[in-house]
Amino acid sequence: MFYSKRNLHFNLYEVLQAQELNKYAYYEDHSAETFDLVLESAEQIAEKMLLPLLTEMDRDEPQLVNGRIKVHEGMKPIIKKFGDDGWINATFSYDEGGQQLPGLIHNAAAFIFQAANYSASVFPFLTTGAANLIRTFGSEELKATFLETMFSGKWQGTMALTEPDAGSSLSDITTSATPTDEEGVYKIKGQKIYISAGDHDACENIIHLMLAKIAGGPAGAKGISLFVVPQKRISENGLEPNDVATAGVYHKMGYKGAPIAHLMMGAEDNCVGYLVGEPHKGLSYMFQMMNEARVGVGMNAAAIGTAAYYASLQYAKERPQGRSITDKNPANPQISIIHHADVKRMLLFQKSVVEGSLALLLYCSKLADIAHVSSGEEQSEAALLLDFLTPIAKSYPSEMCCLTTSAAVQILGGAGYTTDFPVEQFYREARIHPIHEGTTGIHGMDLLGRKITMQNGRAAVLFFNECGKTIHDAREIPTLESCASELENSLRTLQKVTNHLLGIAKMGDTEAYLADATLFLEMTGIIAIAWQLLKSGVVSQNALNSETTHDSDRNFYNGKLAAMNYFFAYELIKVEGLAKRLQEDNKVTIETEADWF
Amino acid sequence: MFYSKRNLHFNLYEVLQAQELNKYAYYEDHSAETFDLVLESAEQIAEKMLLPLLTEMDRDEPQLVNGRIKVHEGMKPIIKKFGDDGWINATFSYDEGGQQLPGLIHNAAAFIFQAANYSASVFPFLTTGAANLIRTFGSEELKATFLETMFSGKWQGTMALTEPDAGSSLSDITTSATPTDEEGVYKIKGQKIYISAGDHDACENIIHLMLAKIAGGPAGAKGISLFVVPQKRISENGLEPNDVATAGVYHKMGYKGAPIAHLMMGAEDNCVGYLVGEPHKGLSYMFQMMNEARVGVGMNAAAIGTAAYYASLQYAKERPQGRSITDKNPANPQISIIHHADVKRMLLFQKSVVEGSLALLLYCSKLADIAHVSSGEEQSEAALLLDFLTPIAKSYPSEMCCLTTSAAVQILGGAGYTTDFPVEQFYREARIHPIHEGTTGIHGMDLLGRKITMQNGRAAVLFFNECGKTIHDAREIPTLESCASELENSLRTLQKVTNHLLGIAKMGDTEAYLADATLFLEMTGIIAIAWQLLKSGVVSQNALNSETTHDSDRNFYNGKLAAMNYFFAYELIKVEGLAKRLQEDNKVTIETEADWF
Repeated sequence: MFYSKRNLHFNLYEVLQAQELNKYAYYEDHSAETFDLVLESAEQIAEKMLLPLLTEMDRDEPQLVNGRIKVHEGMKPIIKKFGDDGWINATFSYDEGGQQLPGLIHNAAAFIFQAANYSASVFPFLTTGAANLIRTFGSEELKATFLETMFSGKWQGTMALTEPDAGSSLSDITTSATPTDEEGVYKIKGQKIYISAGDHDACENIIHLMLAKIAGGPAGAKGISLFVVPQKRISENGLEPNDVATAGVYHKMGYKGAPIAHLMMGAEDNCVGYLVGEPHKGLSYMFQMMNEARVGVGMNAAAIGTAAYYASLQYAKERPQGRSITDKNPANPQISIIHHADVKRMLLFQKSVVEGSLALLLYCSKLADIAHVSSGEEQSEAALLLDFLTPIAKSYPSEMCCLTTSAAVQILGGAGYTTDFPVEQFYREARIHPIHEGTTGIHGMDLLGRKITMQNGRAAVLFFNECGKTIHDAREIPTLESCASELENSLRTLQKVTNHLLGIAKMGDTEAYLADATLFLEMTGIIAIAWQLLKSGVVSQNALNSETTHDSDRNFYNGKLAAMNYFFAYELIKVEGLAKRLQEDNKVTIETEADWF
Repeated sequence: MFYSKRNLHFNLYEVLQAQELNKYAYYEDHSAETFDLVLESAEQIAEKMLLPLLTEMDRDEPQLVNGRIKVHEGMKPIIKKFGDDGWINATFSYDEGGQQLPGLIHNAAAFIFQAANYSASVFPFLTTGAANLIRTFGSEELKATFLETMFSGKWQGTMALTEPDAGSSLSDITTSATPTDEEGVYKIKGQKIYISAGDHDACENIIHLMLAKIAGGPAGAKGISLFVVPQKRISENGLEPNDVATAGVYHKMGYKGAPIAHLMMGAEDNCVGYLVGEPHKGLSYMFQMMNEARVGVGMNAAAIGTAAYYASLQYAKERPQGRSITDKNPANPQISIIHHADVKRMLLFQKSVVEGSLALLLYCSKLADIAHVSSGEEQSEAALLLDFLTPIAKSYPSEMCCLTTSAAVQILGGAGYTTDFPVEQFYREARIHPIHEGTTGIHGMDLLGRKITMQNGRAAVLFFNECGKTIHDAREIPTLESCASELENSLRTLQKVTNHLLGIAKMGDTEAYLADATLFLEMTGIIAIAWQLLKSGVVSQNALNSETTHDSDRNFYNGKLAAMNYFFAYELIKVEGLAKRLQEDNKVTIETEADWF
């Protein structure tokens, strides 16, 4: 077991009411039945094609052979399958050959793929992201040239942003685009690093959505444009080299099955790129898609955390070791370690974090759908709340699943440290997520420096209101009363901290205002997860209170409540310490000089 | 730079007054000068022999070839060097061929080796531990047969405890020892797993200090005896096979250079073991040595954390990325990332944890020396305080250096996730320490269930008194007043929590009493590190207040104070949340049923 179908259904149908999405015209053909078919086939692909390669793809890393990256031979049929079955463009409109599938369901399916084999899962979804940029901002010609072949899985899409001297600081990219005689066609020159699926032999072409600067444009971020830069150019004679060379493949701690490339464009002055949309708007285009990618990263982290949770759960149930703490008789048989309180603590930690994360991520996915297909205030509020939650939905699972996978390793003990069990791989794979698609530090500044204040704090108000609704619902259930109060107190603390920090901002001390943005993000993240778990708790307690709930389901709901209780008792308590720190006048991280280290 | 000589000297001479150890007869020949010579040669060996193999030993893992484990060929000269230069028995008496070196200095040297190359460093120190068991509890014959060759590095020593069904629960071992006609000689049968350096080709023989049960002995832990089980028996014709077969070598996430073996004894009914000391006392013998090993594990963790800290510090100083938060002009050059508050936060986190850990570990090492060479109350108090601090000194660095190495990875960003930089290796290597030599959960129960209550709480009183002395000293320095008060408050909280938990114990609810022992250990650990950092702070502030302190040293002392300030502002605040949890009546980890997961 690498994920819980029961829990996914719980979130989709019992909490988020996904079945009601068909009230929107765009989704009118869909229903719980069509969703289930989608999830069913996702599970089959995951089990039959992805999961069996989990270990192998970790051990047989991609290699650079004669200037091209070779990946595991299993990737070719996998990508073909994703293309053939319409996964790459499933959320796009019928007109575009898509299925108008809600992103919520698409992400739920992605979660299944990611939990089965994270490295394998990224190839098709990178193509989806790249294709999305072309379809949203590209000319008809670009769409006609690239989309269909990308949707089919024949061509791989990438996002090519980072350069050796421009990682977090994208405004400093130096890849240049020089106009040619042909409109919209530029000569590209420069290099890109850390490009996921930037080159591999499981597709016949790689289509880079690449940021570059057109000479003479504004300095910094305002002079960045977006280009389609294919690895191979499309000509009458078929595919021809486009002077995109693979300078190297990165060897990494984990996430090894996915090739991360170092690319050189225009070494022979013969690399062509096609402008997407208008000049100098590249970064804003990219960021519109980036939000999706960021929720996607959170989902990856939660999926890896989920797989590790179930691996350690299985071990805890099967592994006999020690006796009950009150049983001193060595003649008695050993008990399974799941009966030790400290092991249950580590399981509940994992369960509450990964299930709380998944709940938040699916909630965000639904917001994205509503923002996409509704209108008026409903649309703008969904978009705004999603915007607010995105840095949290990216960062909380990313940071915390490093710790949950660590707990999984700990449960297995020495066995967990060996390659005989998959948890050490999950531990290595989880570590990428706080880094890519914006580091946690960047997201902290995004939340505190931008999202909290945007539209005069309207997004934050929406967040508080949504939490308030859940608190209200929980108050109606006696067993949830105390958790409701604790969440309310935490929100009050968050409000106080926020006001304190905004006070510093108003005084003009921007550095002090944002110095601990990462801690502010951590604090808000804990509260957001507590909110989601309380929401799950309301549904679960109501189900338990209902006589029609089947006995076989009671364990599930009791488990949801246990995870909630654990989180409130062991994780939400961290809010007070963080709040204390965030309101203290101690500038040690600013004032410590570089020479003191 | 992989460690700080300046900081090591600070701890040894400015805080712990190591130079005064020569007031004890056993150490009378030693002085700061002899210590410096020892540390100097440790640094040379580390730099010339260990550090150059750090990456290679990670990539060329030990392999099982024709039933024997092959390790990196560089290990042979390294072990020979350790033997030739007297490192293995340096702390032993002159009579035993040792140098009567304080364990404090030996451990300081070990720290240098471990920071340079953790895997390589473990071979000789495993031999030291095994030899220590023989010299302390073994017969004259055993000593004469084994010690000299082990001291020379020709023979490797191991601790062979764990079995497939007996890891944390050692009382369940099944390896059997059957008496032969010869007194003290037994036939051994069974298997052992996870035996560090349990087989390799860099030594000519492997001497296992092995736990086994003599048939007819008491059940459980009270029936465990200790044996010397050589891989090759010593006969008149030289070395002969002793029916100890290597069934496998474990492949691991990190710590790859050290071979961890699966051993089978007596498959041909021809494995001989020699009883050490009396029958059925094996576990108590082993545990007397285990305490040393546990402080050693904490040291390993702190050393890896230190190496990662310096690797990320160097990167932070050299890597330009982004601009000051108030500088919006993209035309200005980028600044080194060390100038970003969030990066300094991650550096201060590492610095405070690894330096606080090292301070505590060296303090424990000095206690061990005093317990070894002094007498009367001084001796018993040192031994008792060391006993109390051991689970903390083992677990705090082990747990926290998983997080500090993670911060090192984060500072390097994408680069940190690749094998182009050493931080990902440190991240993988750090993860073993919360597992081996007793998991963190085991140490939590040791602290709360045993150490807190032993001798009517006398050990805990000693701990509180020592902290009190530091608080008193700090109070005399105005700039340390607030930290002194915070530590005092935290100790008061710890007292309250302890009383609360002991109250539960008195009510007879052992399971509830110990359920959150891991959190109790975490809380005590944070306080112990705060105490050590405050102690360093007192010395540093006094140095800064002195006019004779050289300008070149002021950065160092300012850095010590910054680390202390950081820790009190960002880490000590966690105590309140933990205390809240530990005093709450919420038994979720006990009451959650296995079927609810």
